[in-house]
Amino acid sequence: MEKSKEFTHIDDNGKVKMVDVSGKSHSFRTAEARGYIILGSEIIKKIKENKIQKGDVFAAAKIAGINAAKKNWELIPLCHQIKVTNVDIKFKILEEEKKVWVTSVVKGYDRTGVEMEALTAASISLLTIYDMCKAISKDMTIGGIELVSKTGGKSDYLK
Amino acid sequence: MEKSKEFTHIDDNGKVKMVDVSGKSHSFRTAEARGYIILGSEIIKKIKENKIQKGDVFAAAKIAGINAAKKNWELIPLCHQIKVTNVDIKFKILEEEKKVWVTSVVKGYDRTGVEMEALTAASISLLTIYDMCKAISKDMTIGGIELVSKTGGKSDYLK
Amino acid sequence: MEKSKEFTHIDDNGKVKMVDVSGKSHSFRTAEARGYIILGSEIIKKIKENKIQKGDVFAAAKIAGINAAKKNWELIPLCHQIKVTNVDIKFKILEEEKKVWVTSVVKGYDRTGVEMEALTAASISLLTIYDMCKAISKDMTIGGIELVSKTGGKSDYLK
Amino acid sequence: MEKSKEFTHIDDNGKVKMVDVSGKSHSFRTAEARGYIILGSEIIKKIKENKIQKGDVFAAAKIAGINAAKKNWELIPLCHQIKVTNVDIKFKILEEEKKVWVTSVVKGYDRTGVEMEALTAASISLLTIYDMCKAISKDMTIGGIELVSKTGGKSDYLK
Amino acid sequence: MEKSKEFTHIDDNGKVKMVDVSGKSHSFRTAEARGYIILGSEIIKKIKENKIQKGDVFAAAKIAGINAAKKNWELIPLCHQIKVTNVDIKFKILEEEKKVWVTSVVKGYDRTGVEMEALTAASISLLTIYDMCKAISKDMTIGGIELVSKTGGKSDYLK
Amino acid sequence: MEKSKEFTHIDDNGKVKMVDVSGKSHSFRTAEARGYIILGSEIIKKIKENKIQKGDVFAAAKIAGINAAKKNWELIPLCHQIKVTNVDIKFKILEEEKKVWVTSVVKGYDRTGVEMEALTAASISLLTIYDMCKAISKDMTIGGIELVSKTGGKSDYLK
Repeated sequence: MEKSKEFTHIDDNGKVKMVDVSGKSHSFRTAEARGYIILGSEIIKKIKENKIQKGDVFAAAKIAGINAAKKNWELIPLCHQIKVTNVDIKFKILEEEKKVWVTSVVKGYDRTGVEMEALTAASISLLTIYDMCKAISKDMTIGGIELVSKTGGKSDYLK
Repeated sequence: MEKSKEFTHIDDNGKVKMVDVSGKSHSFRTAEARGYIILGSEIIKKIKENKIQKGDVFAAAKIAGINAAKKNWELIPLCHQIKVTNVDIKFKILEEEKKVWVTSVVKGYDRTGVEMEALTAASISLLTIYDMCKAISKDMTIGGIELVSKTGGKSDYLK
Repeated sequence: MEKSKEFTHIDDNGKVKMVDVSGKSHSFRTAEARGYIILGSEIIKKIKENKIQKGDVFAAAKIAGINAAKKNWELIPLCHQIKVTNVDIKFKILEEEKKVWVTSVVKGYDRTGVEMEALTAASISLLTIYDMCKAISKDMTIGGIELVSKTGGKSDYLK
Repeated sequence: MEKSKEFTHIDDNGKVKMVDVSGKSHSFRTAEARGYIILGSEIIKKIKENKIQKGDVFAAAKIAGINAAKKNWELIPLCHQIKVTNVDIKFKILEEEKKVWVTSVVKGYDRTGVEMEALTAASISLLTIYDMCKAISKDMTIGGIELVSKTGGKSDYLK
Repeated sequence: MEKSKEFTHIDDNGKVKMVDVSGKSHSFRTAEARGYIILGSEIIKKIKENKIQKGDVFAAAKIAGINAAKKNWELIPLCHQIKVTNVDIKFKILEEEKKVWVTSVVKGYDRTGVEMEALTAASISLLTIYDMCKAISKDMTIGGIELVSKTGGKSDYLK
Repeated sequence: MEKSKEFTHIDDNGKVKMVDVSGKSHSFRTAEARGYIILGSEIIKKIKENKIQKGDVFAAAKIAGINAAKKNWELIPLCHQIKVTNVDIKFKILEEEKKVWVTSVVKGYDRTGVEMEALTAASISLLTIYDMCKAISKDMTIGGIELVSKTGGKSDYLK
């Protein structure tokens, strides 16, 4: 019979704890995460009218996402410090749906996975786009933030 | 006729820029943001069975959100450094919908608003919950991140 | 009858919270803290024999303390971000007692006091001395960390 | 005859320096540190009367200690950046002595030890407790901060 | 007779110290700094051949400079924490001289000036350009870093 | 025929990117960088008259440089997080030329080199000297920042 999965961040007394990864094997890890931001129609109109250099906005959002992946351990209290070997952030505009999709891929060698690094990178990239558009309209929603896949460690994952 | 709203973070050549708030008045600002995380059914079952001290998990998520509000200027490239006078984070479990809602309220005195502080606080709180539950199941989605209200500055906002 | 003092960082449900200082008045604040490190006899002997440039060791410990005061809000979860107008760190060697005393004085204008900044500065200065001496002997103890005085805000304090 | 121990952080001219660990072997390291805080009698009374959710206060202090261990290299000027594989913080209340003892255990694989990480974690946990109790009384003292044991590297240590 | 200028960061015993700005008046401050990077001829050739999207490289360097201005207090040990109201970074390519000039303008309200923020912003922008070009050739030199002007405080300065 | 060198930080669409070092071999890396600051004649006069404890000023600049090497990944957007095994900073005063030369040597084991760590360390050390002398005169220039040598990785470099 399968051993039931348990909260690794909760000890026997129900207290939060860091997971002790001292005994885990050091291996290559990847994770892909994604999320979207729904922009108001005013903002999409500006983008269609080319009032904005998309490249420059996405450069800012990409740099913010890379920075966030490197700083994930400072932000998520029980995460380990992971040295990433790569962070890549991609953007896709769906004009009809008024959405920008952000995808982040993080890689690294460690005793634990890089899922949180990928999720945090996508989230901060999306918040950076929000910040740059908020003077036009605050009618924006960020959503759909989830893990797409991970490799390395005890088991792979594919959504 | 109303002056059309423009991207304040984009200069006349379409380049990203920090907004110069030197001439704005220093005043009291508040912002409320929210978002939710949809937990997989396995996790909700554990919560119902009381296998987890919710207080401790939410203490971690709250502290992460407070920290993120204080560090927002390090994360969102074009944001100003804002000294917050308060950050409050609240949690609400909707068992039927398998959702935890996170609400953040940020206050401060500054020449610019605290919207990004509130949105970043909610996002990092949600990611912290994700991190603590991910050993059970990675079938979680973070969404509905939006500004609920802001006060202070040129104009108030209420969703 | 005097209103009983309460934990300001604990809400009515016993949960930790940041203190909302939005309504407090902005005023000049100072705090002095101190602590000592008891060095092993081997280390005191080296110091007496002049095997160490005390100035250089204390310069490192002073810079570490100043840095820690500026970063206190990143370290103590419920503290506010305070811009200090001065941090001063002083050292006194008591050879007979094998002790080095560290005193820190922090100043700033804010809606809340600078006690934690002073205590954190003294603690990190002491830990820096520990670090520089630990190759000789790990037989050291840090203690006596307490607030000496504070001024500004609702009430002054003098130990 | 035994080679006399020297200050590794002091060069031949008495100047502070980082220790060059390039030639040291990469191995598993652990360190345990401890310290206590003496709380005033008013605070102990509140704790006895159950006016405070100890779990929540200790969750905050634990998270602060974990964060401090991860950030130790930012705080102690001559320390190396160490990726910890685990940080554990434990609390023990001695009501008669009006003391809370904090113990920290840090683990990692590196060319240098994790003693400073453990000592800094214990110190910042103690300061976090101080911060949460200081509204009741500032009559508190932090002391007894010392290394309990270390393993790995050239030699083990046990107090 | 004019009072001789003294090192404000050095106390009467020659020790480094933070300047106590508690008594200085809070006022609007600006500073402009500049510097250049001499790129090798291979890099300039690539730029002329349009093998590089200059906008994107300069967006990265600009964001790095803005971040560095906000973090200056973490980098320069005796600097105060200053909340900037604006950071602007401009770039100018002089193809004949194989130089890129970087100019930074920083503004803020404080008891001390923003010169170091402007100089650090320019330096980190230049280092970011270096980083992005170093795969082509390491034959680059950064120089000419100086203060162009400052306003606010006791006296203005114009080079 | 030799494969032409390309910008590794620029992708096929000309966008900035982090270099994926996942496939590179982990090896020992060193880098040496240098730069100078030209001090005004007033400052050199004070130094000659011994009005300043050079040791203490250089201790501050050295600690700032070590800190900057450890934080390089936070400052240069596309740099990887590198754990340094050593940072050494040396100073040389050339009174006739009114110059202080700063040399930094950084070592570490990684999949990528430590050149940027060495260049950033030298730059921040120089800016720290600037900061400590600027009350006397702002007539200073920082220049000559370049890589002296690197070892490890695909190829060594010697200026």
